[in-house]
Amino acid sequence: MAGSLSIVGIGLIGGSFALASREAGLFERIVALEPNPRHAEKALERGLVDEIVEQIPQDSDAVLLACPSDKTASWLRRLRDHRGIVFDVASVKGALMTAVRAAIGSLPVNYVPCHPIAGMEKSGPEAADGRLFAEKLVIITPTAEIDAERRQIVENYWRAIGARIEEMEPIEHDRVYALTSHLPHLLAFAYLQGVAPEHLEHTGGGFRDFSRIGASDPDMWAAIFELNKQALLPHIKQFQENLDGLCQAIESGNVAASRSLIESARTHRTKPKQ
Amino acid sequence: MAGSLSIVGIGLIGGSFALASREAGLFERIVALEPNPRHAEKALERGLVDEIVEQIPQDSDAVLLACPSDKTASWLRRLRDHRGIVFDVASVKGALMTAVRAAIGSLPVNYVPCHPIAGMEKSGPEAADGRLFAEKLVIITPTAEIDAERRQIVENYWRAIGARIEEMEPIEHDRVYALTSHLPHLLAFAYLQGVAPEHLEHTGGGFRDFSRIGASDPDMWAAIFELNKQALLPHIKQFQENLDGLCQAIESGNVAASRSLIESARTHRTKPKQ
Repeated sequence: MAGSLSIVGIGLIGGSFALASREAGLFERIVALEPNPRHAEKALERGLVDEIVEQIPQDSDAVLLACPSDKTASWLRRLRDHRGIVFDVASVKGALMTAVRAAIGSLPVNYVPCHPIAGMEKSGPEAADGRLFAEKLVIITPTAEIDAERRQIVENYWRAIGARIEEMEPIEHDRVYALTSHLPHLLAFAYLQGVAPEHLEHTGGGFRDFSRIGASDPDMWAAIFELNKQALLPHIKQFQENLDGLCQAIESGNVAASRSLIESARTHRTKPKQ
Repeated sequence: MAGSLSIVGIGLIGGSFALASREAGLFERIVALEPNPRHAEKALERGLVDEIVEQIPQDSDAVLLACPSDKTASWLRRLRDHRGIVFDVASVKGALMTAVRAAIGSLPVNYVPCHPIAGMEKSGPEAADGRLFAEKLVIITPTAEIDAERRQIVENYWRAIGARIEEMEPIEHDRVYALTSHLPHLLAFAYLQGVAPEHLEHTGGGFRDFSRIGASDPDMWAAIFELNKQALLPHIKQFQENLDGLCQAIESGNVAASRSLIESARTHRTKPKQ
């Protein structure tokens, strides 16, 4: 047990971290700051936290920022002189750091940037799951300002709840996750706009899998798209070109061309041999 | 037991029907015509069929066309005088019927048009699964020419292997499945063209679910897109407009507009109360 944890935002991610770290015995006390009264109540009811607080206690040993990504930068600024280790879960990293540096000149030395590759279409503390991070990847995007000892402690938190750690350069992180996570969500949202209730009687497993992420939290995703738009927009353009190419092959009845585009797409999903 | 079944194409769907109908004791004898020698061998090895044949036997009581959709029309023409009941699994119906009518003036009276809403990203007889159709929907698209008795028999086949039957008008069928099945496949194919091996180390459950259908059989899907392009192309245009709208909201930094588009998409995935 290593003292106390404060969590900013006790939704799916914050709540799952709370549950997992309780099971791993990481902290003696866990409190959360949560503006949504329904979420706050649910978090207490499920025993995710010991108390809902109005302010981050001065003596917290660690502060987890599990708020929507667009709130992370202002929390980093606000907590820059806090004695505890501050770590986050925002799925945008380079753009976030640029915003913080623009505001206060450098990143706070108490900050360890993290992005757990775990989530689901459900949200809120009612969906919190102590196994959410088990065998999942957590990306650490180290910075010039990062403190080695604090980084080690945060990595140990994640490992204690079953996650693996990998390091990535922040801008590269944003570019890669714009393609592998943010773009699929965007496409699922755009696709579902064309679906009406009468269609839902006529769907199979393909539809369900493809559109599952389309049920994800709108606030969270609008914030991610805004924060990471510099990396995301070029991927959207590239997708539109690929779609146009396939569309033209179909429109012109060039079945061999469609087939070859589909075949090439399929091979891209195959994981390279390790 | 009701005599003998011939299957044209012993891949995932033909093989699964063979397995399921064996378990249900529907036929005394099952043979298949299969141009791919590896598939033919695998089907024999797994005991899906009693024999691989070069021609459909004259005395077959039923013939299942489980070939790629672009071959179905020519098989319907070729078998129009066959004594057995001919039924298929093509995921395009109205366009297929139009093609057959254009070629021979009317639909063969031995034909019962079927579309089982079951499939997966795996293909070939090695993926055949006797439970594939259990609790799945099979769409029957009746025509002016359809024979009531034959239709009843085919519906009983599907019910015997656990499927539910629903009737749809053929053109409406093509329009609806273009949106709920063909378009998601097309989008997954276009998306995967932009994904490179180095990205695959950085994917979560969202990517896996979203792109699963992108691993589907290229021959089968190129044929479906060609056959159903009249219904599919307007859905592609509509999708492109929805994507443009979301893209413009992101590009202009209008987070409220993005949020509202995402929110509306999300509600479209909710099944109406029955």
